[in-house]
Amino acid sequence: MIRVTLINPNTSRVMTEKIARAAHDVAAPDVEIVAVCPEPGDGPPAVESHLDEVRAAAAVVSMIVRDQESGGSDAYVVACFGDPGVDAARELVEVPVIGIAEAAMHVAALTGRSFGIVTTLSRTLGRARDLVRRYGFDEACVAAHATGIPVLALEEQADVDEIVAWCERAVRVDGADAIVLGCAGMADLCATLTGELGVPVVDGVAASVGLVSGMARMGVGTSKRDEYAAIGTRETPATRVADSVMA
Amino acid sequence: MIRVTLINPNTSRVMTEKIARAAHDVAAPDVEIVAVCPEPGDGPPAVESHLDEVRAAAAVVSMIVRDQESGGSDAYVVACFGDPGVDAARELVEVPVIGIAEAAMHVAALTGRSFGIVTTLSRTLGRARDLVRRYGFDEACVAAHATGIPVLALEEQADVDEIVAWCERAVRVDGADAIVLGCAGMADLCATLTGELGVPVVDGVAASVGLVSGMARMGVGTSKRDEYAAIGTRETPATRVADSVMA
Amino acid sequence: MIRVTLINPNTSRVMTEKIARAAHDVAAPDVEIVAVCPEPGDGPPAVESHLDEVRAAAAVVSMIVRDQESGGSDAYVVACFGDPGVDAARELVEVPVIGIAEAAMHVAALTGRSFGIVTTLSRTLGRARDLVRRYGFDEACVAAHATGIPVLALEEQADVDEIVAWCERAVRVDGADAIVLGCAGMADLCATLTGELGVPVVDGVAASVGLVSGMARMGVGTSKRDEYAAIGTRETPATRVADSVMA
Amino acid sequence: MIRVTLINPNTSRVMTEKIARAAHDVAAPDVEIVAVCPEPGDGPPAVESHLDEVRAAAAVVSMIVRDQESGGSDAYVVACFGDPGVDAARELVEVPVIGIAEAAMHVAALTGRSFGIVTTLSRTLGRARDLVRRYGFDEACVAAHATGIPVLALEEQADVDEIVAWCERAVRVDGADAIVLGCAGMADLCATLTGELGVPVVDGVAASVGLVSGMARMGVGTSKRDEYAAIGTRETPATRVADSVMA
Amino acid sequence: MIRVTLINPNTSRVMTEKIARAAHDVAAPDVEIVAVCPEPGDGPPAVESHLDEVRAAAAVVSMIVRDQESGGSDAYVVACFGDPGVDAARELVEVPVIGIAEAAMHVAALTGRSFGIVTTLSRTLGRARDLVRRYGFDEACVAAHATGIPVLALEEQADVDEIVAWCERAVRVDGADAIVLGCAGMADLCATLTGELGVPVVDGVAASVGLVSGMARMGVGTSKRDEYAAIGTRETPATRVADSVMA
Amino acid sequence: MIRVTLINPNTSRVMTEKIARAAHDVAAPDVEIVAVCPEPGDGPPAVESHLDEVRAAAAVVSMIVRDQESGGSDAYVVACFGDPGVDAARELVEVPVIGIAEAAMHVAALTGRSFGIVTTLSRTLGRARDLVRRYGFDEACVAAHATGIPVLALEEQADVDEIVAWCERAVRVDGADAIVLGCAGMADLCATLTGELGVPVVDGVAASVGLVSGMARMGVGTSKRDEYAAIGTRETPATRVADSVMA
Repeated sequence: MIRVTLINPNTSRVMTEKIARAAHDVAAPDVEIVAVCPEPGDGPPAVESHLDEVRAAAAVVSMIVRDQESGGSDAYVVACFGDPGVDAARELVEVPVIGIAEAAMHVAALTGRSFGIVTTLSRTLGRARDLVRRYGFDEACVAAHATGIPVLALEEQADVDEIVAWCERAVRVDGADAIVLGCAGMADLCATLTGELGVPVVDGVAASVGLVSGMARMGVGTSKRDEYAAIGTRETPATRVADSVMA
Repeated sequence: MIRVTLINPNTSRVMTEKIARAAHDVAAPDVEIVAVCPEPGDGPPAVESHLDEVRAAAAVVSMIVRDQESGGSDAYVVACFGDPGVDAARELVEVPVIGIAEAAMHVAALTGRSFGIVTTLSRTLGRARDLVRRYGFDEACVAAHATGIPVLALEEQADVDEIVAWCERAVRVDGADAIVLGCAGMADLCATLTGELGVPVVDGVAASVGLVSGMARMGVGTSKRDEYAAIGTRETPATRVADSVMA
Repeated sequence: MIRVTLINPNTSRVMTEKIARAAHDVAAPDVEIVAVCPEPGDGPPAVESHLDEVRAAAAVVSMIVRDQESGGSDAYVVACFGDPGVDAARELVEVPVIGIAEAAMHVAALTGRSFGIVTTLSRTLGRARDLVRRYGFDEACVAAHATGIPVLALEEQADVDEIVAWCERAVRVDGADAIVLGCAGMADLCATLTGELGVPVVDGVAASVGLVSGMARMGVGTSKRDEYAAIGTRETPATRVADSVMA
Repeated sequence: MIRVTLINPNTSRVMTEKIARAAHDVAAPDVEIVAVCPEPGDGPPAVESHLDEVRAAAAVVSMIVRDQESGGSDAYVVACFGDPGVDAARELVEVPVIGIAEAAMHVAALTGRSFGIVTTLSRTLGRARDLVRRYGFDEACVAAHATGIPVLALEEQADVDEIVAWCERAVRVDGADAIVLGCAGMADLCATLTGELGVPVVDGVAASVGLVSGMARMGVGTSKRDEYAAIGTRETPATRVADSVMA
Repeated sequence: MIRVTLINPNTSRVMTEKIARAAHDVAAPDVEIVAVCPEPGDGPPAVESHLDEVRAAAAVVSMIVRDQESGGSDAYVVACFGDPGVDAARELVEVPVIGIAEAAMHVAALTGRSFGIVTTLSRTLGRARDLVRRYGFDEACVAAHATGIPVLALEEQADVDEIVAWCERAVRVDGADAIVLGCAGMADLCATLTGELGVPVVDGVAASVGLVSGMARMGVGTSKRDEYAAIGTRETPATRVADSVMA
Repeated sequence: MIRVTLINPNTSRVMTEKIARAAHDVAAPDVEIVAVCPEPGDGPPAVESHLDEVRAAAAVVSMIVRDQESGGSDAYVVACFGDPGVDAARELVEVPVIGIAEAAMHVAALTGRSFGIVTTLSRTLGRARDLVRRYGFDEACVAAHATGIPVLALEEQADVDEIVAWCERAVRVDGADAIVLGCAGMADLCATLTGELGVPVVDGVAASVGLVSGMARMGVGTSKRDEYAAIGTRETPATRVADSVMA
């Protein structure tokens, strides 16, 4: 079995279960899904600002360190649309590590020429744009819209109409061939939105499972050449990071 | 079962079998692999020029039309590094369609920050560069080297040293975190090269299987919004293309 | 005399004559214009999809091969706005080869800082965008609009108002300094549109004649250095492509 | 007086004093310089990996929170070349916040057309490249070289020859008009290198002092429009981040 | 004292005094401000076209030559938003030279992620765009709007409402985090606009004073490596340029 | 007849005659060639610096004003590789205006995928790079080399070997499909270099004649929409510029 561990860096157990379900629904028969989140106080309640990202990145690192200590996984997914801590996580392991923004954008790019992102608060759009550029999708990403719905409000599944409206704008006005859902908390809306919109709607949680399990079957992981090489020049750096957050 | 049909647009049966094997080796338990190629005379012996690409694109279209007529597949892979006919193929079906250059670049980008392409003849580098830009990997792709080995010479598995030398240059000099193999005919060298180089080596055939089967499990296919919508305004255009090639 | 052969890859004789006239009207005294198109069944009736492009590219190749066999020309123009087969055509000859999208964009860029493209169906805009990037006009091209008028409807010269409206939008709203006509079938509207709009309107057919005849007088043709070198490693590849389409 | 607080996110007091001196040497008469660093255990000993950056970002946040609690400053500088935590810091205050990589690149760009970065370990080049792109200096930055000298080895001021050699390569081979020093620990080498090289050598610590004090005099700080607006929707987020690191 | 000479290349004494005041208001205690402009007939009345820029560039060169002959300054600012003659000025001196468009964009980029330019006549937007690209702010600059107010009309301080309206559009619609004032003649509106808009408003005159005085304190000037090296191969070129304009 | 006036902005009569010959050699039967240059003292002896460009731009403007006063031409060419004054010239006339760098790059881009520039002094490469970006050829231009040969030394036709060597480097090492000659003074070397190199060698003087005469036959000139509209809001600006230079 290929063990895929999804790390929700916020402390919402409701969202973590939603993530686990979304991942499980698209997992191949040879894939085992594990979804974890930090204890209350060890991570942000939601990731909606750069301050939250700082804390989320630290939580991702400490959860991977802990998973590694108890045997490790065949692949890791950072299940938060800002992809916090992905670079650091790649230094920690040799297996694939992917963020759900990264995963969603790669899959959306394979469905056509263009996609639009529909996300939560407008203040997160800057980070989304940074990731779009970092991953190479400046041309493909023709829209990035914020619904104004906070992450935790998605637990209540309200406001689907608002989300649909922004998706429709991305499709009809901006010319997006597909929609990228800009929050792990939207994973359960994927089927509904696909039905409403008539274009592919890509949830990064589901997208990431296919990508990392495919990489695991190929034996392709994280390149340890230089930037993401294991750290050994100073003492126990990974533990050190975890400590400062865990303490 | 998810039926993935890989289309080798050249007429080499040896290469088609190699492609089938490479795909089969990385397929999840729920994935069925089919690999096809045109009859001699219905496609180019190898794809090493823009003229070959024109012919290869026509062959891809006609083989997809034929597969559709006999029930269709859950996903299609164009198993030639120039990704000939992928745009046209997307007009023909609602399921995922991917080229192996596209697949290899997406997966390589997930292994680190950068990759280098090592391919066959230098005259194909222009097309490779076009695809790099089209897919958004201008930043990620730090090298594109031609070994000078013609496609069909790869059937004899000679010159691995020459290929290793160019891969090493991409890694050591150009700073590539991973290698993208620039020809379906290199699929069987993947394990050897990985062993020699110590960085991820990505074969597009294997990469594509994980990507399209993951998309199929998610229910995400080709966007039929506009550019890739089915063609209906004039009579039976798909058959028409196939006819002119098949006749 | 400089013999310029314009290849309309669709089978419309009406459009081919329109192209010949547009080219003739702007030819210098030392330029002879020839315009050809495939026999019905040997090319698409119009080029409005990627499937059509595949077929059009093959038609371009076969018509150049045939022209070469009967003495050849001093320059070739692919008179279809998607520039199908231009790369392949450059492998076949040493003289200049240019597509009309390419020609129109180069000339439009010389009239000011920016241009807008007004074309036929929206599904062709993706290809237009690819060409804009390939030729380097991402900055210069500030708009690409589809009128929704099919290629063959242009034979009847209806809907000039619709075309004018989109051109005006490109000029007034998008700030285009000039208009690029996105279809060879619009060649005869050039004077009318110029009169209506008050900015340069560039038809690619006319533009191409000036460009290639200028290159011919300079003795500058297609670079045969590597990518576009003649093909000799395998047997008679050019004929081979033509055969598979012509058969 | 304009109070500029420089935050060294690593725990080296030697480096913090070096930073204070470099800042003081270029401060205008109306500028007061304060330099701080985390207590041992509250930050990384040096910032040489993405894991270190995660920890450094948290340390930056907590030190700004603490400074705000005791009256605040007129401007903040993140005195580490990876600019960790700058985005988060901008959410915390209304005054200017700048990283030293950002500062150095802006000033270097004003000295000519191009610059080269000379930094510590090669594994940090990826982050440097990300910052180059984020700040818009892809064209201006013509080289980024790693000397292989770890951050803390710079305390001993050895290996100036090695640094000079890489700077010379950037100038003579890569055509850099100026050099950007890629580590706060190189601040004291600025005069020596300028003497050796004959081109402007820009230390980000010194550069940042001029930039933020100039902004303070203009009354221009951080835009609180949206992305960097203060956080109020959930409880005490800034303190929360600090707590998880400080605990 | 650091002597900063600001060169207004148009002949308006009213505007030159406005520039001097704006510069003086933000100068550190160790900075002396000098503002000059050409005699009537030796420069354009305003810079609102490429023809004006040609004349303005010549005026900048001749005023720097004259200042150098009478002892020189520690830094030069070209106080016209098109930054005319900055490249040539850098060849003439070893101290810092900066244009106010350049200065404003650099400072605006430090206040957040994005800025919008609000300027005078629409015909100057092309030059503004050229400068945006040259300085690397293609991503950061999200809007460039012309108010339609001629440069000299700004002397009368009318139409503030029109300027506010365009600034608001840049902020609310285009998502600009800050505003860049696109004319030296707007320097006195900076405080008013800041009050109205609630985001940083950056006047290039004020911005430039902080930047060049900071560079002067660091001992960083113009790189004389190659492009901006002093000219010595032919006779007295600087004087020659000045002569042809002054005569 | 189409009257094409080529403006050499330097004062060398030898070079002006060379330009006239090169233009004449490639002119169609319906094209009349006129080549002019400023009187000694009214322009720079050569254009090898930004200071020279300032003076050259003024000379271009004044020569076009004078030509307009005596009846005007059907097209103008700025025959200096830095394209000085082209923007301003476009404000003065409604007919086509083109620089020889612009012309050479457009034609070179039509010969293949890439070109390399070989020019005079290294200090002019910055300007060349600016033009490459402005015209959209960042991708196409794979090399820009300086021979170190001053402009006026080209009058003596020495150092062809040095020029050949740099061209060969561009072709063999940098992979240029064609060579762009980076100085009007190299026009007479075009045939020799083509013979030596075996790839298209493009002289901008010859290239420009084909481009502007083609535009003239199409009735396509400079867009007078906004940026390049005639100037009328203030008094006689064109004359004014000319005056300040001519005086």
